[in-house]
Amino acid sequence: MRLFICGFGTVGQGFAEVVASRKGFFEERFGEDVTIVGAMDSRSYVTSQDGLDPMSIVIGKAENGRVGPDGYDDPLAVLDSVDYDILVEVSPTDVKTGGTGLITIRHALECGKDVITVNKGPLALRFRELMDLAESKGCMLRFEGSVGGAMPIINLCRENLAGENIRSIRGIFNGTCNFILSKMDNGQPFEQALKEAQQMGYAETDPTNDIEGYDSACKVVILANSVFGRDVTFDDVEITGITSITEGAIALAKSRNMVIRLIGEVSDTKLSVGPRLIPRGHALGLSGTLNTAQINTDLAGPVTVQGRGAGRMETASAILSDLVAIMEARR
Amino acid sequence: MRLFICGFGTVGQGFAEVVASRKGFFEERFGEDVTIVGAMDSRSYVTSQDGLDPMSIVIGKAENGRVGPDGYDDPLAVLDSVDYDILVEVSPTDVKTGGTGLITIRHALECGKDVITVNKGPLALRFRELMDLAESKGCMLRFEGSVGGAMPIINLCRENLAGENIRSIRGIFNGTCNFILSKMDNGQPFEQALKEAQQMGYAETDPTNDIEGYDSACKVVILANSVFGRDVTFDDVEITGITSITEGAIALAKSRNMVIRLIGEVSDTKLSVGPRLIPRGHALGLSGTLNTAQINTDLAGPVTVQGRGAGRMETASAILSDLVAIMEARR
Repeated sequence: MRLFICGFGTVGQGFAEVVASRKGFFEERFGEDVTIVGAMDSRSYVTSQDGLDPMSIVIGKAENGRVGPDGYDDPLAVLDSVDYDILVEVSPTDVKTGGTGLITIRHALECGKDVITVNKGPLALRFRELMDLAESKGCMLRFEGSVGGAMPIINLCRENLAGENIRSIRGIFNGTCNFILSKMDNGQPFEQALKEAQQMGYAETDPTNDIEGYDSACKVVILANSVFGRDVTFDDVEITGITSITEGAIALAKSRNMVIRLIGEVSDTKLSVGPRLIPRGHALGLSGTLNTAQINTDLAGPVTVQGRGAGRMETASAILSDLVAIMEARR
Repeated sequence: MRLFICGFGTVGQGFAEVVASRKGFFEERFGEDVTIVGAMDSRSYVTSQDGLDPMSIVIGKAENGRVGPDGYDDPLAVLDSVDYDILVEVSPTDVKTGGTGLITIRHALECGKDVITVNKGPLALRFRELMDLAESKGCMLRFEGSVGGAMPIINLCRENLAGENIRSIRGIFNGTCNFILSKMDNGQPFEQALKEAQQMGYAETDPTNDIEGYDSACKVVILANSVFGRDVTFDDVEITGITSITEGAIALAKSRNMVIRLIGEVSDTKLSVGPRLIPRGHALGLSGTLNTAQINTDLAGPVTVQGRGAGRMETASAILSDLVAIMEARR
């Protein structure tokens, strides 16, 4: 199986390492090698039809700040310059335009390639179009890592729970907000908790995307489209962030044995992100940086999952899960 | 897809209802009907190559206490009397001999049929033999519902997390014990909590199988064999039940902000069931009748799942999950 990795930041590098570390696994399970025939970052690329050494690309990127010596004008021409089976699209998320990710995913599908992505932009903006394109070409478009990182949710709902009528999904889909709210439970004011999140590397310098609920909203959109068969985008989500949650509100919740959590909720009719009161001890009252989701089904009842919502190896692990599923299906 | 259901107690009946309720789903997803061509309980059977009406079998069983008018001597002759694609084996668990389940599963696999079971007996006693037989015949043997009921665990580990190195699984695999221990957290003595569990229908009149940890041990064996590739049976598990847990021990745990839970643990080297001290608020410190499992992996880190460990529709839902997977693979 030949992969082309588009985007070679933290996740792309982590995934290349995973490919190297799973050599024996691929051979044993599928009797087949997985090779990386191309890698591209925002300004350079490297390709080899015979396969690149994954660790060499990672080391090269670390040493030179770029994936290869050559620059490019047209990312699609680079893609077309080698034969690959699966595009692994992990370039930075752009929720306004979909960014390069949207362009390369669409192109790969048009060329009959399978695609794995964790890029929320293209999925939140053009889900139906991309899925329809994949279907018309007999390709797979998989995106486990786009919601909840290493927490299993997309494939769990679409495959393991495929026979269920899923009534709703409610969850914590942003570890940064949950870290801040957990700190506020212990009496820290918002600003201080945010600062600590930034110092710990959980929140970015501009934390807007997390704390205003936009990141959670993207994930809710992806769940709505992929699990509930809806056709919605970012603008359809009712969003409230966590910036206006006061110490007083937290204290009042506490006095009633509740906590406040930023909950994304999706069903056939609902699509929202906002702070909610959760009873202490409830699965959605989780503290810390983990993600969690409660999937409410008609037969199984509530199924709850919990896992690391972000991280280099954690997101790479979700991509690996999709890769295994594609290899299983193509066997 | 034609099913033969062996065992027509609570779970068999629930599953027949599920087949009826998912008619539209099967047609839409697979363009195919799912029909029940045979059903058998401990003393009678009913078959029809054209398909039986699922609800009529359920109602017949309720009215007459048996699935069909005709008795049988040889269950295998009954199985062989119709063409079916999948054996759904849900007869009562016999962990000493494997019971009829072992005989019918082996026979179906030998005849090249796929098998779905929730029967812990055959799996805990003859896992390797049955899986090898399935493989040699190009058949699938699936058993999601045998551990944790509607809590996704087997397929999650074997498929979604297939690329991970799973280091260990620790979990609560018996809702009855957890109900009793949760009641004891609130000061009830063991005997009283057990009585309440019996009144609520969670514990059987003879509760030995649950409270001595034998049921959890079967599940741990199934996980060891199916997820860790081990070849162990019931006798290899180090088992301690919950009968010797005193109110004093619970109180001492509480004073240290801990709870006592019956934890099954499995890894490449470990295979145990016993009461463990769990910090209050930890995912394994769950109260009530739910099951939970923490899967420790090298890439994804800890992945936690939680769901209903038993129940008519809940177990039927796990069978449905396996059925969908088989239909997907056979497509």
